[in-house]
Amino acid sequence: MASEKPFRMVTCTAPVNIAVIKYWGKRDKELILPLNSSLSVTLHQDQLRTTTTAAISKDFTEDRLWLNGMEVDVGQPRLQSCLREIHRLAQKHRSSDDDGDGPPRLSYKVHVASENNFPTAAGLASSAAGYACLAYTLARVYGVEAELSEVARRGSGSACRSLYGGFVEWHMGERPDGRDSVAQQVAPESHWPELRVLVLVVSSEQKPMGSTVGMQSSVETSALLQFRATSVVPARMAEMIRCVRERDFAGFGELTMKDSNQFHATCLDTFPPISYLNDTSWAIMHLVHRFNAHHGQTKAAYTFDAGPNAVVFTLEDSLEDLVAALRHCFPPESNGDKFLKGLPVRPVTLSDELKAALALDPTPGRIRYVIATKAGPGPQVLDDPDCHLLGPDGLLKPAAGSPSLGCPLPS
Amino acid sequence: MASEKPFRMVTCTAPVNIAVIKYWGKRDKELILPLNSSLSVTLHQDQLRTTTTAAISKDFTEDRLWLNGMEVDVGQPRLQSCLREIHRLAQKHRSSDDDGDGPPRLSYKVHVASENNFPTAAGLASSAAGYACLAYTLARVYGVEAELSEVARRGSGSACRSLYGGFVEWHMGERPDGRDSVAQQVAPESHWPELRVLVLVVSSEQKPMGSTVGMQSSVETSALLQFRATSVVPARMAEMIRCVRERDFAGFGELTMKDSNQFHATCLDTFPPISYLNDTSWAIMHLVHRFNAHHGQTKAAYTFDAGPNAVVFTLEDSLEDLVAALRHCFPPESNGDKFLKGLPVRPVTLSDELKAALALDPTPGRIRYVIATKAGPGPQVLDDPDCHLLGPDGLLKPAAGSPSLGCPLPS
Repeated sequence: MASEKPFRMVTCTAPVNIAVIKYWGKRDKELILPLNSSLSVTLHQDQLRTTTTAAISKDFTEDRLWLNGMEVDVGQPRLQSCLREIHRLAQKHRSSDDDGDGPPRLSYKVHVASENNFPTAAGLASSAAGYACLAYTLARVYGVEAELSEVARRGSGSACRSLYGGFVEWHMGERPDGRDSVAQQVAPESHWPELRVLVLVVSSEQKPMGSTVGMQSSVETSALLQFRATSVVPARMAEMIRCVRERDFAGFGELTMKDSNQFHATCLDTFPPISYLNDTSWAIMHLVHRFNAHHGQTKAAYTFDAGPNAVVFTLEDSLEDLVAALRHCFPPESNGDKFLKGLPVRPVTLSDELKAALALDPTPGRIRYVIATKAGPGPQVLDDPDCHLLGPDGLLKPAAGSPSLGCPLPS
Repeated sequence: MASEKPFRMVTCTAPVNIAVIKYWGKRDKELILPLNSSLSVTLHQDQLRTTTTAAISKDFTEDRLWLNGMEVDVGQPRLQSCLREIHRLAQKHRSSDDDGDGPPRLSYKVHVASENNFPTAAGLASSAAGYACLAYTLARVYGVEAELSEVARRGSGSACRSLYGGFVEWHMGERPDGRDSVAQQVAPESHWPELRVLVLVVSSEQKPMGSTVGMQSSVETSALLQFRATSVVPARMAEMIRCVRERDFAGFGELTMKDSNQFHATCLDTFPPISYLNDTSWAIMHLVHRFNAHHGQTKAAYTFDAGPNAVVFTLEDSLEDLVAALRHCFPPESNGDKFLKGLPVRPVTLSDELKAALALDPTPGRIRYVIATKAGPGPQVLDDPDCHLLGPDGLLKPAAGSPSLGCPLPS
């Protein structure tokens, strides 16, 4: 029998996902089991990703965690819950490269460093990418080959959807122990290559209520939420899967908007009411509806999570017009060339008809910037040792510029 | 037999009402029958009222209508529908002062003039007061003694609630012909003398979608609205009536806020979504919740109709504090002494604790002004001929200052 390696380090990346059928409300707070199934689009990691390095060593004396360059308390319950779940799975599913009955690496302490390639302050719901990346990286470092939905879900419910690329369903499941509450790919990112995604980072004065507290309050007080979960979502899930499979953008877009609106309606029906949409969010919603009305069909679709930022879906052939419309109605406050990040979009001139149809007075600065992206793959392993966020000593590398930012993703 | 009088003129006033259990959505568009019952508080006419003069004469050759000093087309369907309904009732219920079988005054053409003692532009949903006043005045001038819900309802559904003072229930009814869809007083205005009402007129850039179009769109597209009407409102009506009867302000206030929020949730669930609340409305909602949290009980309660204006209920002993809190968070843009209209409210100084609890940065100009009022009586007849809006010739009096403004209401 080979002896257990004394030190092991793995670095992985994971994507952000955006729900088009929303998850809001848990039926089990402890296990993080949702009231209803949900469906999301995984965004491409070229634009938005979390990178996580995990190292285990028989020499480590305690678990340690660094987030975005700062060491933080490793004792927080959700992180501990993920670690426990990985250990439980590891005992069930030892992977084939397991070193056998030597000192079990499972007992080794772990050092974890994680960072996002986008500002946390932008409110881009980084926890899903973060916990998906944690689950995926811990599984690799501990040598666990298993479905990881349960691990990711213990960190943040929607994190299980970031374990897969493309279009992902999170089955609510029926079992009380949550074993069947798992994510599953509906279609890979290659299925719908024309789909484009714009992330609109909106200026906001106040930090919105956290989703954990918010959804708990909704579960306790909103009759509409219960009705939505039991009587509306099941049919919407089936319809959304059909739209994705058939690449029916009009159907996909309309249902995406309706489901975003209904989620925010349940927030308003919560007591005290929760508001994630502000006047800028509404201006974006009006813009999208007017853009579609002008074209006589659904060519763009918004969705909003627990904050004022919008995500707008469109197809490649409408992208330039849509970006021009956004730039017209929400001109950047100053430096115009930083308005658009991510995928390049050729600037075009809006027709006077479309400008008139939008009927929104340009207001500078309401949108801070726009990230153009598309659907992308699930978590990736980075093999290049230069990409590790931890050094050979298992401690955070000097943050001489975020090292992972320059690390190319495998293609 | 006495001969029919050749000319007859009546002037009446009617109040605005504010729903605390909301009406939104018709089950019959023609008859204006609602999806659910609703309950309102009639506001005092000392502050907000419509005055209407109706004259009939055998010499009039056509129906004519003046609104707020301007002659308008008398052919609009809802007005005609009210007139038809009055004629139908008149044939069923001739009043005791009927002149018998002389030339039936019912065939006489009518001249109507109507005006509000508040600016129409303030968005204070004047149609309920207007159609209640029209129904009441037409009934008087044609000599009809009957329940007038059906007449007022044909003009504007919620107008039937302005036919009574105090606390008024509009029974949705069950009959397809709508005969049982009528308003009924739950308690007179004298029942709860401590109740106070603040109407907050909010600055808004855009005119909101009209309620007729909006509710029709909600009926057609919002699953939540149907659920609300059938499964939520019935129990809320019973609970609200209990709160009114027992003068339980905490229960009344909490349910009022919840029902306002749920109505606006169904607007957001409408497709395309309807937004009547803006960021200022939300700031008012936050202020009220923080005011209540500071006091450890529900001492104030907001409700919003199809526009951004708020109506806030409170009791006499909290009124001064609440107005001071509003003035602190929403200082008038200029002329401070015009911020408050209506009932006098003694200025008080806010405690530093309450100021801190409100946690809202003062933003001038978001509330244009506040009208302080209370619950009041139903429609009134004005006997003083000086109060008529029409002259002896049946034409609009020269608008040398709105004549009705100075007309005292009978007490």
